[in-house]
Amino acid sequence: MTDQKKDASNAMWGGRFAAGPDAIMEAINASIGFDQRFARQDIEGSRAHAAMLGAKGIITGNDAEAIREGLLTVLSEIETGKFQFSAALEDIHMNVEARLRDLIGDAAGRLHTGRSRNDQVALDFRLWVRDQVDAAIVSIQALQKALLAQAEAGADWVMPGFTHLQTAQPVTWGHHMLAYVEMLGRDVSRFTDARARMNESPLGTAALAGTSFPIDRHMTAEALGFDRPAANSLDAVADRDFVLDFLGAASICAMHLSRLSEELVIWSSAQFRFVTLSDRFSTGSSIMPQKKNPDAAELIRAKIGRIYGANTALMIVMKGLPLTYSKDMQEDKEMTFDAADSLMLALAAMTGMVADMTANTPELEKAAASGFSTATDLADWLVRALDMPFRDAHHVTGALVKLAEDKGCDLPDLSLADMTGVHAKITRDVFDVLGVHNSVASRTSYGGTAPDNVRAQVTLWKEKLS
Amino acid sequence: MTDQKKDASNAMWGGRFAAGPDAIMEAINASIGFDQRFARQDIEGSRAHAAMLGAKGIITGNDAEAIREGLLTVLSEIETGKFQFSAALEDIHMNVEARLRDLIGDAAGRLHTGRSRNDQVALDFRLWVRDQVDAAIVSIQALQKALLAQAEAGADWVMPGFTHLQTAQPVTWGHHMLAYVEMLGRDVSRFTDARARMNESPLGTAALAGTSFPIDRHMTAEALGFDRPAANSLDAVADRDFVLDFLGAASICAMHLSRLSEELVIWSSAQFRFVTLSDRFSTGSSIMPQKKNPDAAELIRAKIGRIYGANTALMIVMKGLPLTYSKDMQEDKEMTFDAADSLMLALAAMTGMVADMTANTPELEKAAASGFSTATDLADWLVRALDMPFRDAHHVTGALVKLAEDKGCDLPDLSLADMTGVHAKITRDVFDVLGVHNSVASRTSYGGTAPDNVRAQVTLWKEKLS
Amino acid sequence: MTDQKKDASNAMWGGRFAAGPDAIMEAINASIGFDQRFARQDIEGSRAHAAMLGAKGIITGNDAEAIREGLLTVLSEIETGKFQFSAALEDIHMNVEARLRDLIGDAAGRLHTGRSRNDQVALDFRLWVRDQVDAAIVSIQALQKALLAQAEAGADWVMPGFTHLQTAQPVTWGHHMLAYVEMLGRDVSRFTDARARMNESPLGTAALAGTSFPIDRHMTAEALGFDRPAANSLDAVADRDFVLDFLGAASICAMHLSRLSEELVIWSSAQFRFVTLSDRFSTGSSIMPQKKNPDAAELIRAKIGRIYGANTALMIVMKGLPLTYSKDMQEDKEMTFDAADSLMLALAAMTGMVADMTANTPELEKAAASGFSTATDLADWLVRALDMPFRDAHHVTGALVKLAEDKGCDLPDLSLADMTGVHAKITRDVFDVLGVHNSVASRTSYGGTAPDNVRAQVTLWKEKLS
Amino acid sequence: MTDQKKDASNAMWGGRFAAGPDAIMEAINASIGFDQRFARQDIEGSRAHAAMLGAKGIITGNDAEAIREGLLTVLSEIETGKFQFSAALEDIHMNVEARLRDLIGDAAGRLHTGRSRNDQVALDFRLWVRDQVDAAIVSIQALQKALLAQAEAGADWVMPGFTHLQTAQPVTWGHHMLAYVEMLGRDVSRFTDARARMNESPLGTAALAGTSFPIDRHMTAEALGFDRPAANSLDAVADRDFVLDFLGAASICAMHLSRLSEELVIWSSAQFRFVTLSDRFSTGSSIMPQKKNPDAAELIRAKIGRIYGANTALMIVMKGLPLTYSKDMQEDKEMTFDAADSLMLALAAMTGMVADMTANTPELEKAAASGFSTATDLADWLVRALDMPFRDAHHVTGALVKLAEDKGCDLPDLSLADMTGVHAKITRDVFDVLGVHNSVASRTSYGGTAPDNVRAQVTLWKEKLS
Repeated sequence: MTDQKKDASNAMWGGRFAAGPDAIMEAINASIGFDQRFARQDIEGSRAHAAMLGAKGIITGNDAEAIREGLLTVLSEIETGKFQFSAALEDIHMNVEARLRDLIGDAAGRLHTGRSRNDQVALDFRLWVRDQVDAAIVSIQALQKALLAQAEAGADWVMPGFTHLQTAQPVTWGHHMLAYVEMLGRDVSRFTDARARMNESPLGTAALAGTSFPIDRHMTAEALGFDRPAANSLDAVADRDFVLDFLGAASICAMHLSRLSEELVIWSSAQFRFVTLSDRFSTGSSIMPQKKNPDAAELIRAKIGRIYGANTALMIVMKGLPLTYSKDMQEDKEMTFDAADSLMLALAAMTGMVADMTANTPELEKAAASGFSTATDLADWLVRALDMPFRDAHHVTGALVKLAEDKGCDLPDLSLADMTGVHAKITRDVFDVLGVHNSVASRTSYGGTAPDNVRAQVTLWKEKLS
Repeated sequence: MTDQKKDASNAMWGGRFAAGPDAIMEAINASIGFDQRFARQDIEGSRAHAAMLGAKGIITGNDAEAIREGLLTVLSEIETGKFQFSAALEDIHMNVEARLRDLIGDAAGRLHTGRSRNDQVALDFRLWVRDQVDAAIVSIQALQKALLAQAEAGADWVMPGFTHLQTAQPVTWGHHMLAYVEMLGRDVSRFTDARARMNESPLGTAALAGTSFPIDRHMTAEALGFDRPAANSLDAVADRDFVLDFLGAASICAMHLSRLSEELVIWSSAQFRFVTLSDRFSTGSSIMPQKKNPDAAELIRAKIGRIYGANTALMIVMKGLPLTYSKDMQEDKEMTFDAADSLMLALAAMTGMVADMTANTPELEKAAASGFSTATDLADWLVRALDMPFRDAHHVTGALVKLAEDKGCDLPDLSLADMTGVHAKITRDVFDVLGVHNSVASRTSYGGTAPDNVRAQVTLWKEKLS
Repeated sequence: MTDQKKDASNAMWGGRFAAGPDAIMEAINASIGFDQRFARQDIEGSRAHAAMLGAKGIITGNDAEAIREGLLTVLSEIETGKFQFSAALEDIHMNVEARLRDLIGDAAGRLHTGRSRNDQVALDFRLWVRDQVDAAIVSIQALQKALLAQAEAGADWVMPGFTHLQTAQPVTWGHHMLAYVEMLGRDVSRFTDARARMNESPLGTAALAGTSFPIDRHMTAEALGFDRPAANSLDAVADRDFVLDFLGAASICAMHLSRLSEELVIWSSAQFRFVTLSDRFSTGSSIMPQKKNPDAAELIRAKIGRIYGANTALMIVMKGLPLTYSKDMQEDKEMTFDAADSLMLALAAMTGMVADMTANTPELEKAAASGFSTATDLADWLVRALDMPFRDAHHVTGALVKLAEDKGCDLPDLSLADMTGVHAKITRDVFDVLGVHNSVASRTSYGGTAPDNVRAQVTLWKEKLS
Repeated sequence: MTDQKKDASNAMWGGRFAAGPDAIMEAINASIGFDQRFARQDIEGSRAHAAMLGAKGIITGNDAEAIREGLLTVLSEIETGKFQFSAALEDIHMNVEARLRDLIGDAAGRLHTGRSRNDQVALDFRLWVRDQVDAAIVSIQALQKALLAQAEAGADWVMPGFTHLQTAQPVTWGHHMLAYVEMLGRDVSRFTDARARMNESPLGTAALAGTSFPIDRHMTAEALGFDRPAANSLDAVADRDFVLDFLGAASICAMHLSRLSEELVIWSSAQFRFVTLSDRFSTGSSIMPQKKNPDAAELIRAKIGRIYGANTALMIVMKGLPLTYSKDMQEDKEMTFDAADSLMLALAAMTGMVADMTANTPELEKAAASGFSTATDLADWLVRALDMPFRDAHHVTGALVKLAEDKGCDLPDLSLADMTGVHAKITRDVFDVLGVHNSVASRTSYGGTAPDNVRAQVTLWKEKLS
């Protein structure tokens, strides 16, 4: 193509990529802008590989040692910010290997024996994701601890239990906090399962077919903390399940956080006033100093979008890809970095918010006692004390609530005469179940909201998390 | 509102809901159109609950027995199609209970003691999803077996291994089949994990707060095959993680199927001719009898959309819902039914297609041998036999491929003189590694494509699946 | 395959598809279970095609007339429920044509001249989606009218304007209602654009390449209300943009509805009490008669999940499909039906809820006046009356709010002395801007919340919608 | 909180945010890391606002002029890289204003009169997105031109038209290229519609309620190229439809690109060899020089994931947000930047690939002629020449294809005797329609694949794009 034609076609591509094919292909091929986040994992993997090559006699012990030492130097240069990354060298693997060659000479060229870039990037990314899983678990448990502290403090604080954001029955603050501890417990379980499933080493599956060098993949797997080497080389270089497992677990965790965030936003409104968020996790307005915007809660609520967006993106990318490696799969990294960062920020912010927030107990109790919230207790009493079928007790209760509503009072304010007017067998004992404290104390079935249950669960969880 | 005004407002709502609020609210409230799929689970749960109420003396043994027998009758009526479902009774729970009352009278009214619709629907759906998980695992394993049969038959059939849909290295048909066996193995693991996580009983958490009746949730949990009762009542009625876990596992499984489907579509094109699908899983054209459309493969490929769409839908529904139950959560069922049906159909169709398909082995081998596909073997030989650093061997190989290309031949067709012309130390032994059969036979590293490896893996998997 | 082997393999497919390949392929191929919703569109398209074939002399006038009359009979049979759909005939097209042959004999065989099933299904679905677009526009405008009625009634009712669900400034009820009228106006615009873009006729593009019959595609396009025939036959049969445009517009509309639903749920909580929903759009509890669950609002809020889920599903299905028709595309229908039904239900329910809801004006005004909500008015007064730079006025206001907070009063309760103590030049005029009614009345900038603005916008919109 | 407690709680947040609340809140609040991409739009908006404030006498003409000049200086500093961005100043707005104050003193404080950060960010982002829409349209049209050049060159090159990736009928290369020109034409239309819909100015809607300053929003709207000011202040600050419209259009465009990419990947496989991609848009292997990986096509195919992922993310973020501004909405930017960058890169790369690719015409024609691809032409001839009903012609054709298949030849190779043996009335004329060139030439119906049609469409499109 003549220069003139080249200029014309460049003009056609226009805009940001006006420099033509070169600029476009660099944008397509160079991953060093983001995959330098793998530096530590890349070097860790190469060191294990070199040790194995030496041990198996595929390279000499001297070469192996030189490589391993040289790589430590490279890592130290990167971690201290002295390393010069080069876009021309495209990715983290080539950047590290080129620098290694500077440092130790031709022996560096022996490192790549029995592996390829395909298994190398699969390894690096897998190690990185595994680290994120570990970090996520630690962060979730920190949030569980913050919730447990709230649950312990408020094991018997009464608040309204909602369905449809309408008061349904009184519950305890501690019980509500523990509901999130349970959700987060499932999140930990989900990340733990993901970790176990991803913990197979792709190293040594080479380009896609394995290798004829007598490598020992079990040795490198063990050195890198894997449970075993991956059993099929085609699968090992074509697989991104480990990322999807991470993003899936992160998405559900973010969904849980979005529910708690929503509650915190609503609870800190002027109309609810159930909680006060600390200044440290709100932003004010210099003009309206009473205004405390629950910015952190709102931002956490939004993170489910960002994380699930990444999940969607990768699921779409992987759809219909023939085996084994396709360039499409290079799109897996930036979105995962972003999702992982989003999750960690959300967890840290939620932990801080929960640790610092103050429940407005008088307001909670007042809200819990309104709206005939103990009608169910009344119905249950009728069943239990008078042996009514449940459906009949339900109707008697409805009549009593109607009476109270007509009188403009709440259930405990009805007289015994009012009660017996509706159903003759009701006795004074009924009043024991109509107060909110009695109500919550009575819900002693396993998993129920009674303060004693809450305390028992707090104790159990503290042990699990210690 | 006067009738006239009512008519006017009805007109405003227009269209399908012209009948006004009643039609709209029925559409919103009535779930019996779809939740009748829970009939068996609903009755199973109620029978366990009744037995426990009797055992704990909350209802009489006679009542418990009458309820349990009556429910069996209802189930039998439903399963034989004699049951009349009523939209006015809204949902499966009320339909069953109403019929029970017809059959056994007032004792039916005692069944609902110590539970509510909130924990009942949570229970029914959880049991239903658990059944789907079990069915999915069985179906996946059937597909694994079909793939294993293909792998065993073609442990040493040679085919091209692709990256970027370009021939990269020869691999074996069996190895390629096993790659999917591995993916599906992770799917089984994912469903198994989901099953363990969801296997907690919500029954007896009641509306949201637990109950004051002395129920025994451990007893019902055990009777229904759960590992334990859910530990927090608020969480138990507000949780839909078990559905998301199912949809998440189903999505990744569908993604795997989409990859295999894509390969089958491409492989059965006139240009590839790698496989012939059986007539039973293709559709023809009466006018072009040679045309075999891979309809089943295409439809399976599309299922990831439908299943992941359901996942997206539920994730969006759950975002930001305050505790505990909100009506939003009623949207969880139809999409899950559809996703489950889609997955089962896709797995059954894929199993049939794989079992019935015929590999075109001459075409596969021809394709494998083209395109200098053993260049990597040559490079590895240089490293191994001549002790070259890998990067240098890489350059020598490039020169030899270039020479072959210039001569219009492939690598095994070069003469020894051609070889030594490029690098003097090359010996006649090199020709041993240049044939595709030698190539695949040499990849004996763990997880590599060598026929012996394939056979060993087939044996292992057959044991696992037996 | 022997029968025995067949049984074995059937067993392998297991479960719902135990009957083996036949049951599976029927489930894959038969679309009559859902595409019978196209009956009217299919017949409408065939009648236009027959008329054109007759007019162009491709078939005789008599045949054309017989076909057209016969199709009317078929339609009438379908609409009166007399038609027997047959799964063996797979789809709506073959069902209709087979019945036509019963009715008019061999002439029916001439109808398919110059077209194929590929353009026929593209036509039917396009006509159906276009009908949905029209229905959506009518339904949205009905909701706009309900909002306008609310806006007109409450043009000067004062309520809090929120950011972060914290009171920021007073606004008017009418202005808030109009915000949704604007959003819905964009929805109408989006559907209108989609309609214009999809309004091209695929009929006559045949299987994929066009036809050698001298058909007149402009004639059929005109007869079916299209703006023009599609210009490229490959594109016409491979395109599903018209569905994605519909689902995209429906998704954003559902997002708008989810915001209003969220507000209605929050506003009808016991803590906010901003609105009372009518009994017709809430559900109660027989035991807690005061409880009004905003079920309709919650269900509408959830519909964004279902609709956007369909959008996701189809986007994934279409990803990476080679031209032209692939079986994957058969997955486009059921999800679109479901999304369209969901949208129509959500719009109808929201229209009813908005029409019937009652604003609690005293509560709204009380909430609007709390929280120093006119601090911005004070700051603006300082800029305007005292010529302070905005940033300085901001600081003075902050000091005054702080003073009021310390005194436990609100801004209008400060004395002039209090004011001048903070800034000497403040005059008595300042009190004119501190009441909430003055505040909203003063926001007369275009688009501002002043009651006169609201009334002007209501008038404009009523004209647009009349 | 004591320092000791603070340390403890910091420890609890752990990991990346170990520095505690300050680090977390900075990560939550500071947007300067990404919103500096708005610098030009922010300054453009502020200059228009200042000019209006001056013109309306709200600030002095001198102040207005000083602000406008100062802003130019700031812009110049930013564009030349001299500007020091400060994270402490949080966002682009405060960074610019602070620097303006340095440059011109207190007059800078008057710029913010009658607006707020809420409308300012809504303005900046809207202007930025509008610019992206314009850039997308230009880039799409460049791609259309590249496709038109291919279509013009190959108006009569014959290739197989596929359904199900199986050869169905011969079509022309030009016609296939034009199918994408049509899709992209709809993309342009979609972006154009989005632009018109978003082209309303939010400037001057202030925090949420409008302002009491006598601002002229029509004036600033006009100055900034908007069609009109937004009509409702609450909507204006709470709306992100303009982003969703952009992402929706970008998603469908990316879907189209994914289809073309898929074809290019398949077409450049060794089995298809339909096209050769230029070296400039492929990557090679130093070891297998014949290998040309279609990296660019693969990466473009993946971009639909990234772009639709952003769409999903924002749709989830916006779900259920009460009016007006919530912090959640700050999550709208980074994902949109990423999606826009992805789209521009994909369009530029595809334009380059298409411009540079070479069709392998002999291979295309050979593939087109195989597989009885003119069977439909034969059937149509029977209808036209012998007046058979279409369905009968279909059966005769099937018999002839069967005969050819049995003889191991293709349709044109049958003798007349063979033909008349199947149906007596067939004449020698039939052979005119059996060649692929005759086939495509005959498809002259509007939108059909005939070379003359292709040329006419090319001419039309060239006019539209000139």
